[in-house]
Amino acid sequence: MKINPDRFLRDLHKLREFGASGIGKGVIRPAYSEADIAARRWLAGRMADAGLQVHFDPVGNLFGLVEGPSILLGSHVDSQPEGGWLDGALGVIAGLEVARAAKEAGGPPVSVVSFQDEEGRFGVTTGSGVWSGQIDLHAADALTDDTGVTFREARGQMADLAGGVIDPDQFTGYIELHIEQGPSLDGSNDQIGVVSDIVGIRDMRITFSGRQNHAGTTPMHLRADAFQALSLFNARINDRFADVVTPHTVWTIGHVALSPNAASIVPGRAAFSMQWRDGDQDRLNRMEQIIRCTASEVAGLTGASVQFGALHGLEPQTMEPTLREALEAGAEAVSPGRWRILPSGALHDATNVARLMPVAMLFVPSIDGISHAFDEDTRESDLVAGLKVLAHAVTRM
Amino acid sequence: MKINPDRFLRDLHKLREFGASGIGKGVIRPAYSEADIAARRWLAGRMADAGLQVHFDPVGNLFGLVEGPSILLGSHVDSQPEGGWLDGALGVIAGLEVARAAKEAGGPPVSVVSFQDEEGRFGVTTGSGVWSGQIDLHAADALTDDTGVTFREARGQMADLAGGVIDPDQFTGYIELHIEQGPSLDGSNDQIGVVSDIVGIRDMRITFSGRQNHAGTTPMHLRADAFQALSLFNARINDRFADVVTPHTVWTIGHVALSPNAASIVPGRAAFSMQWRDGDQDRLNRMEQIIRCTASEVAGLTGASVQFGALHGLEPQTMEPTLREALEAGAEAVSPGRWRILPSGALHDATNVARLMPVAMLFVPSIDGISHAFDEDTRESDLVAGLKVLAHAVTRM
Repeated sequence: MKINPDRFLRDLHKLREFGASGIGKGVIRPAYSEADIAARRWLAGRMADAGLQVHFDPVGNLFGLVEGPSILLGSHVDSQPEGGWLDGALGVIAGLEVARAAKEAGGPPVSVVSFQDEEGRFGVTTGSGVWSGQIDLHAADALTDDTGVTFREARGQMADLAGGVIDPDQFTGYIELHIEQGPSLDGSNDQIGVVSDIVGIRDMRITFSGRQNHAGTTPMHLRADAFQALSLFNARINDRFADVVTPHTVWTIGHVALSPNAASIVPGRAAFSMQWRDGDQDRLNRMEQIIRCTASEVAGLTGASVQFGALHGLEPQTMEPTLREALEAGAEAVSPGRWRILPSGALHDATNVARLMPVAMLFVPSIDGISHAFDEDTRESDLVAGLKVLAHAVTRM
Repeated sequence: MKINPDRFLRDLHKLREFGASGIGKGVIRPAYSEADIAARRWLAGRMADAGLQVHFDPVGNLFGLVEGPSILLGSHVDSQPEGGWLDGALGVIAGLEVARAAKEAGGPPVSVVSFQDEEGRFGVTTGSGVWSGQIDLHAADALTDDTGVTFREARGQMADLAGGVIDPDQFTGYIELHIEQGPSLDGSNDQIGVVSDIVGIRDMRITFSGRQNHAGTTPMHLRADAFQALSLFNARINDRFADVVTPHTVWTIGHVALSPNAASIVPGRAAFSMQWRDGDQDRLNRMEQIIRCTASEVAGLTGASVQFGALHGLEPQTMEPTLREALEAGAEAVSPGRWRILPSGALHDATNVARLMPVAMLFVPSIDGISHAFDEDTRESDLVAGLKVLAHAVTRM
């Protein structure tokens, strides 16, 4: 198989014209937007040009298929509301180039996929979630985006393209090339990362309810200040997690909504997001226990009450050893001494696809670790290195 | 002079229809909102009905005037974003009733005022602040609310009503009746509080700027999380204030705005309100030093930077002895043995007006000390007692 790096880079740059932000190489191509659907139509054309059989499934996942059993390569072409040009696009176009080169060489058999709504305009990794049975289609249809549009309405925008569900049994495995989206490879000057596992994620909304009161006339000792509860909770979980976490564990309070959120009023309510990620399911569960115990304890101390929202999450996924070895061999061939094994802190379609077949992932560096932003970028030499490792692994299998 | 309690209560209940929250007697009537301007138009009509000369000044302070020298009574009709029905409304409608009754009785001469933006949508007690020269109109015009609207734009909503500035020399003094907004009178079962002094206040917006990043791929030790900076700052000032404060000192972080405020993104920015109050100017200054030092120290520790907004504030104000004696005599006549002297922990327009003329204040109880909330309330017998003390004091002078 002879891959063509120029053709690969041309397609990758062409794709960023769909929803180009006009700021750097950034794109605005959320799932089911005009730009996203136009990108998928163009991509379907490129698949057809390569001799692949084009198929859209009921939610807009786009497949480029070969006959008989094949390895599946891909990712997604939808972007964050303000996204970078590489994110999921890299894995899709690299998959297309490898499938195309394999077709030209008469084998091995390679199919390609671009999943829909990986970025979670509705829910989390929605397109691969539905395909893998992680989410029931009926339940997904009821999901809404921030403006109240339902998933069912959104996928209706592509109804003219939609065919039936693709049988996953035709695929022998799934490999996803992706940018790292973190600072690790860029910091160590490595060119390739072979993923050991994708961390699991837990997400819960927590609300402290105290007593809203006048900030001038309510003595400190008579207050039940919901912000003070949040601040104390944060300090205590930081302390207590220290006994449980590894250097790879992360946790974040990223969303806070005080009520009524006014300078002269003691906050009566503090609703916030608590998210934590780790590669070990048991550790995720122990962190959940600390969160629940600490929040209840802090509520007692501050005169507030606490409500826990639904716990959302995905389990950690270990990459399949045979596929991973193929990627390691490819990495050593293409970038000798400049690759390493690392976990994925970000969620990917591969997490869902692992329910259906063996999966593996590889990373190329993100310059300064920047992603989900217009200035997301990777050196073209690194992009091509990733493509070569992917081709190498596919050939080896 | 013969006051009419029924007419007073009818007007007070009518006023809460403007911006009624639909929850209890609560109101949503922030300064310059449609509800606030409609309430002011209605109030102007009631003043005119009472034979008072109606005048709006350039910022929307509404006066009901008599000819020649007079005593000025009043407060404000704007509310907090989620406010109670009595707060400033009580002082305005009680002032209206006393002025109306005085007019009917042929004297003494009483004028009324409803100041604008006492609740500080822009800055602090903005309307009376501008009138008293505490804030220059030009400087006030540049103030913005939480959504970026300027004071200049907001007062433009009332430009069709605006006349010139009212000369304060026509007023011999100012008395403001208000609910206590704290638990003190309600706790001791007193009906009237005569205010000794109003505590001083300091208000400052502080912003920690860290680095916005992916909440899955950014290791904890590489983060500059602006929410973590805020939480650590809060914990440290709570510790350090303990060496400086008295049981009457209060401080509050009531408004927090994270950016981008999303569960999966490490917060890049945390902007928040820091407010503190005390009767002693020196203590207020020492607290400011602790705030500035701690915020700078925490910025250094968390890899964030800190910006301090303008320091707004008002100095502590002692009430004028002659007016206060008139209120004490009124309290003893109306509620013998059921009144007492106490400081005001809340800020009031009276603080600003004290720059122009002698001022005094009286309080009626707040049930359970609740204020700035939909369930703020006071027994009608206590409201009427406050009205009677006000009328008594005015008659005595």
